[in-house]
Amino acid sequence: MGSPARVSMGDAWSWRVHPDMESERRRPSFDVERLTNILDGGAENTALRRRVESIIHSDPEFSLKENYFMSQNEHYEAGVKKKFHLQMLARRLGWSEGSRELRYAFRAVTGDLALGLHHIFSKSLQSLGSEEQIAKWAPLCDQFRIIATYAQTELGHGTYLQGLETEATYDADTQEFVMHSPTLTATKWWPGDLGRSATHALVLAQLICSGARRGMHAFIVPIRSLQDHSLLPGVTAGDIGPKMDFEYIDNGFLQLDHVRIPRENMLSRFAQVLPDGTYVKLGTAQSNYLSMVVVRVGLLLDEINPLLEKACVIAIRYSVIRRQSRLRPSDPEAKVLDYQTQQHKLFPQLAAAYAFHFTGTSLRDFFQESYGAILDRDFSLLPELHALSSGLKALISEFCTQGAELCRRACGGHGYSKLSGLPSLVSRVTASCTYEGENTVLYLQVARFLLKSYLQAQASAGSASKTSLPRSVAYLTAPDLARCPAQRAADFLRPGLYTRAWAHVAVRLIRDSAHQLQTQMQSGAEEHEAWNQTTVIHLQAAKAHCYYVTVKSFAEALQRLDKEPAIQQALQRLCDLFALHGILSAAGDFLHDGFLSGAQVDMVRTAYLDLLFLIR
Amino acid sequence: MGSPARVSMGDAWSWRVHPDMESERRRPSFDVERLTNILDGGAENTALRRRVESIIHSDPEFSLKENYFMSQNEHYEAGVKKKFHLQMLARRLGWSEGSRELRYAFRAVTGDLALGLHHIFSKSLQSLGSEEQIAKWAPLCDQFRIIATYAQTELGHGTYLQGLETEATYDADTQEFVMHSPTLTATKWWPGDLGRSATHALVLAQLICSGARRGMHAFIVPIRSLQDHSLLPGVTAGDIGPKMDFEYIDNGFLQLDHVRIPRENMLSRFAQVLPDGTYVKLGTAQSNYLSMVVVRVGLLLDEINPLLEKACVIAIRYSVIRRQSRLRPSDPEAKVLDYQTQQHKLFPQLAAAYAFHFTGTSLRDFFQESYGAILDRDFSLLPELHALSSGLKALISEFCTQGAELCRRACGGHGYSKLSGLPSLVSRVTASCTYEGENTVLYLQVARFLLKSYLQAQASAGSASKTSLPRSVAYLTAPDLARCPAQRAADFLRPGLYTRAWAHVAVRLIRDSAHQLQTQMQSGAEEHEAWNQTTVIHLQAAKAHCYYVTVKSFAEALQRLDKEPAIQQALQRLCDLFALHGILSAAGDFLHDGFLSGAQVDMVRTAYLDLLFLIR
Repeated sequence: MGSPARVSMGDAWSWRVHPDMESERRRPSFDVERLTNILDGGAENTALRRRVESIIHSDPEFSLKENYFMSQNEHYEAGVKKKFHLQMLARRLGWSEGSRELRYAFRAVTGDLALGLHHIFSKSLQSLGSEEQIAKWAPLCDQFRIIATYAQTELGHGTYLQGLETEATYDADTQEFVMHSPTLTATKWWPGDLGRSATHALVLAQLICSGARRGMHAFIVPIRSLQDHSLLPGVTAGDIGPKMDFEYIDNGFLQLDHVRIPRENMLSRFAQVLPDGTYVKLGTAQSNYLSMVVVRVGLLLDEINPLLEKACVIAIRYSVIRRQSRLRPSDPEAKVLDYQTQQHKLFPQLAAAYAFHFTGTSLRDFFQESYGAILDRDFSLLPELHALSSGLKALISEFCTQGAELCRRACGGHGYSKLSGLPSLVSRVTASCTYEGENTVLYLQVARFLLKSYLQAQASAGSASKTSLPRSVAYLTAPDLARCPAQRAADFLRPGLYTRAWAHVAVRLIRDSAHQLQTQMQSGAEEHEAWNQTTVIHLQAAKAHCYYVTVKSFAEALQRLDKEPAIQQALQRLCDLFALHGILSAAGDFLHDGFLSGAQVDMVRTAYLDLLFLIR
Repeated sequence: MGSPARVSMGDAWSWRVHPDMESERRRPSFDVERLTNILDGGAENTALRRRVESIIHSDPEFSLKENYFMSQNEHYEAGVKKKFHLQMLARRLGWSEGSRELRYAFRAVTGDLALGLHHIFSKSLQSLGSEEQIAKWAPLCDQFRIIATYAQTELGHGTYLQGLETEATYDADTQEFVMHSPTLTATKWWPGDLGRSATHALVLAQLICSGARRGMHAFIVPIRSLQDHSLLPGVTAGDIGPKMDFEYIDNGFLQLDHVRIPRENMLSRFAQVLPDGTYVKLGTAQSNYLSMVVVRVGLLLDEINPLLEKACVIAIRYSVIRRQSRLRPSDPEAKVLDYQTQQHKLFPQLAAAYAFHFTGTSLRDFFQESYGAILDRDFSLLPELHALSSGLKALISEFCTQGAELCRRACGGHGYSKLSGLPSLVSRVTASCTYEGENTVLYLQVARFLLKSYLQAQASAGSASKTSLPRSVAYLTAPDLARCPAQRAADFLRPGLYTRAWAHVAVRLIRDSAHQLQTQMQSGAEEHEAWNQTTVIHLQAAKAHCYYVTVKSFAEALQRLDKEPAIQQALQRLCDLFALHGILSAAGDFLHDGFLSGAQVDMVRTAYLDLLFLIR
C-alpha cells in the first residue's frame, strides 16, 4: 500500500485521475473491455452505446450543472425541454422509437426527462389496442402530435384494481362512453405528465354497458385542447405537489364529470362493446393487466437496477479514494475499501446488481418468447409471466432500494450531500417499491401462484397422469435433500450446492405456508380469514422463491460464459457472494429443519468472508 | 365492521374527525390520558406540554403552511426567523435555557429551526470548559450576543478523530494559538450554522505545544465580525450546498489560514497549556470526547426517536382510514390495518418506538448519575457510559431509520408525497445513522468494550478475586441455559424467558467473536489484521448486545408500572412484540447452537402473529 494522496491547498483543480483510483485500475484480474461487451450484449453494442453517449455528453442542452439547484418548476421546464431536444435529435439522427440508440440515449441523459408516461401509453396501446386503434393513435404518439399519459391509480385506490371507481358507461343512443368520477376518492392521482402536460389520458375505468358492470377497461380520453392546451369541458386536472423525487415530472390529478368519448376509444384487443351495447370478451379477466406486465419487465433493466448500479459505482470509487483511520498504527490512513465492514456493506450490493442484470435479462427473454403468443390470445404462459415479473419486480426493487441506501450510508456524511448523486438515486429507487404494484401485494400474488403450483404438484404426485409445472416452479417436484452435504467452507462455492440449498428452503417454506393455511381452515376459519391470518408466512415463502430464482438465473448465465474463463471466475465470485450473503441473512430458514447445521452456517460465513477478501 | 366512509365530490372540507378514526378511538382498552402522563413523566408535565403547544400552535409565525413549497434559501430564512421568534417568546415567558418548557416548545415547532449548533456549542462549553470560561462565554451564548457552532468534521475526516488535520500551534511569545488548515482535506465540512450564520466556532484541532503533538482539543475561534458579520482575516467559509434534508440549516465549510486566538480560548477543564507552553493534562485521553457523549444521549429522546414516533402516528392513522381490497368477497373494502401484513409492517415499529422511549429514559438517568462525577474528573463510569450511549445511538438510529421508511412505504403512493410528512421524517432520521459517530464505527467501539469485559470475566472466573463488571455487561457472568425451556407459544410471552434468550445469544456471539479473533492471531495474523478480518463478526455481537439491553430496559420499565395494570398489559404486548420480532428476524442466531429448536421458532412465530391480532 502506497502513501496516501493528499491534495494541498495550493493545488489547482485538474482532471487528472486520483492516484488511488489509478492504482486500483492498474490491476484488474480480467479484461474489463470484454466484460463491458458482455454486459452490453456484444462489442458492437458497446461501440454504439459509446457513440450515443458521446453525442449526449457533448451536448450542452443535457448539462447536469444546475441539477441540484433548481426549483420544482425549473426542474419541470428543464425536463420538458430536454425531452423535446432529445426527440428532435433522435429524429435527425434516425433513432427510431424503441431502438437501441434511443435506449442508450435515455440512459445517458440519466433520466431526468419529462413525458415518460407517453411511452407507457404507447406500450399499453400496443398491448391492449386493436390493429385499427394502433394504426390511428401510434403515429400521433410517435410524432408527439398528442402528449399522452396513463391514468390508473386513484386517490382511494392503488394496486387493488377491482376497486377503481371511475366509470365508463356506454350510451348506445350516441355510441359514446360517459366517463365519470363519482366520488372524491375516484380522482385519478399520481399519473405522471398529467398535472400540466398531457393532452390525452389512457383512463382505466369500470366498464358499464347494457346495465352490467364488466370490470376494468382502458379508454383514450382527450383532456386538454390541442389548440390552446386548456382543459376540455368536464375535466378538472392539476399537479399533486411536491414529492420525494421526480420533481421534473408533473404527477397530477384528474376528475371527469360526464365526459363523452366515442365508442372507438375503448382499447379493444381483448374486449369490445358493439354499437348496440353488447359486450364481447376476447381475452381473459386478466388480459387488461397485460400492459402492467409489459411495463414491469421493462422497468427492471431500464430503470430500477441501473439506480443500484450507479450507487455501487459511486460508493466503490469513493471507498478507494477516502482514507480513514489506520489498519496498523504505523501505516498511513487506509482506504476504507480495505476494511472488512466496508466490503461487507458494498460487495453484496455489487453482487446483487450483477445478479439482477442477468436475472432481468432472462426475464426479458422469457417475456419476448411469450408476448407474441399473448397478443394472439394464447394465454397459457400469462400466469407464469405475471408471477415471475411480479416477484422479480418486488425482490429487485426491494434489494435495489436497500442496496442504494447502504451505498449512500457507506459514504458517510458525503453520501448525505445531494452533490454526491446518491440521495437522488435512493429517493428515486425507493419509489419503485410502490409503483407498478406495491411489493407486498405482488409477493402475495406470487404466493398464490406458488400455492396453486404446489397443490398441483401434490395432486400430480399421487395420480398416474403427470401434469408438468411451469418452468420456474418445476423444482417443486425435483428430488430434495434432507441435509446439506457440505463438509468444508469451500464446498459452499459450488453453484449446484447453494442453488439446491435455496430450492430446499423455498420448497420447505411453500409447504409450510400451504400447511398453515390448511390448519387455519381445519380449525374453522373461512378461507379469506385463514388467508389473512397466514399472509406473513406466505410472504416469507414468496421471497425465498424469488431469491432462489435469482440465484439460479445468475448461476446459469455464468455457465454460458465458459469461453471467458477470467471473466467467468470474477463473476462467479459475485454469484457465490450473492447466494451466501442471502443464506447468512436468512440463516434461520436454513437451520430450521436441520438442513444446515450451526457448524455449516459457520462454514458459509468463512466462505463469505474469504470471498470479500478475494473480490477486493 | 361498519360500512366504509366515502367522501362525495360535493362535500365541503370540514374539520370533522373521519368516522373510521372516530370509531377506532371509541374503544381503547386502557386510559389513554394516563398513558400520556406516564410518557410525559407525570400529569403536571402533560399539562405544561399542552400549554406550551397551544402557545406555539396558535402563533402564526410557526405556521407550517409553506413548509413544502420553499426554496433552500427561504427555508433558511424561515429557520432563522422562527428561531429568534422562539427565543424572544421564551425570554418574555420566562422559559430558561434547558427548561422543560423550552424543550416542549422545540418539539412543538417540529424542529425546522436554524442555529441548533449554538446549543451543541453550549453543551460542549459546559462539558469541556473551565469555570472561568463558562462564566465568560455562557452568558454571551445564552443572550445570543454571539452565534456559535461546533466544527469537528473535516472534508477528509469524520468519525476517526485522531485523523483530524486542523492544527492549533501554541506560540509562547505572544501567548496565542495559531489555528491552521494545512491541506484541502483539513477543511471543516458539515458543521451546521457555519455557512452563513455563526460568529464563533468551537474548532476541534490537534494541539501542538512545545513542539509536541497532544491530540484533539477544543478552541473557541471568532470567525465573523460582530460589527458587520464579514469573515475575519484568514477565515474562508461558506455553505456546502444542497442536502437530503435540513435545508433550513446552513451546513458549512471553514478554512483557517494562520488565525491567531488567545491562549484562554482553549477549553481547559481536562487539559491546559501554561503561558510558557507546558502542557498539563487533567483528564484522560478520552476526556475531550465527553461532549460527544452528552450530545448523543440528548439526541435519542429529543431528536431521533420522535421521528419514528411521528412516522408511526401518521402511518397508523392512515391505515384505519385507507380502505383497500376486501377480506371477504361480500364485505366492503377493508381498513388496511386489518391486514396481517400491514400489522406486521407497523406494529413492530410502534413497539420499537416505545422500547426506545423507555431505554432512552434509562440511559438518560444513568447519564445524569455519572455526568457530575465525570465533570469532577472521576472517570470510572466513562467507559461504560461511552459504550452504552454509542451502542444505543447506533441501534436506535438504525431501527428508527428502517422503521420510519417502513411506515412511509406502508402508506403506498401517498407516503411518497411530501405532503404526507413522511419523506422529510425519513430523510431526516437517516442522517442520524451517520452524524455524531457513524454507526458501524460505534458498534465496533461497543464490540471492543464487550471483548474487554468478556476477557475480564473469563480471567475473574479462573481467579479467587472476583472483579465486578459494569452493570450493562454483568450478564456475561450470569448462569446461562443451554436450551430454552419453552414448551408452548404462550411461554414466549414471559419477559424473563425472552430476556434470558437474548442474553444467551449475546453471550454466545461475544464468545464467538473473542474466539475468532484469537484463532486469527494464533494462525499468525497481527492483532490489527486479525481485528479487521473479524469485524463483521464483532458487529453482529455488538448488535445482539444492544438489542438485549433494549429488551431488558423495556421489560424492567414495565415492571415498575404495576399500579397501572391496564396500561401495563397494553405496553407488555408491545414489549413482547419487540422481543419476539427481534428473535424472528435473527432466528439463525437462536437456532445456531440449538438454544431454540425449529419447533420453538414456530412457537415464537405463533405468539408473534397472535400479538399482532391482540394489539390491533
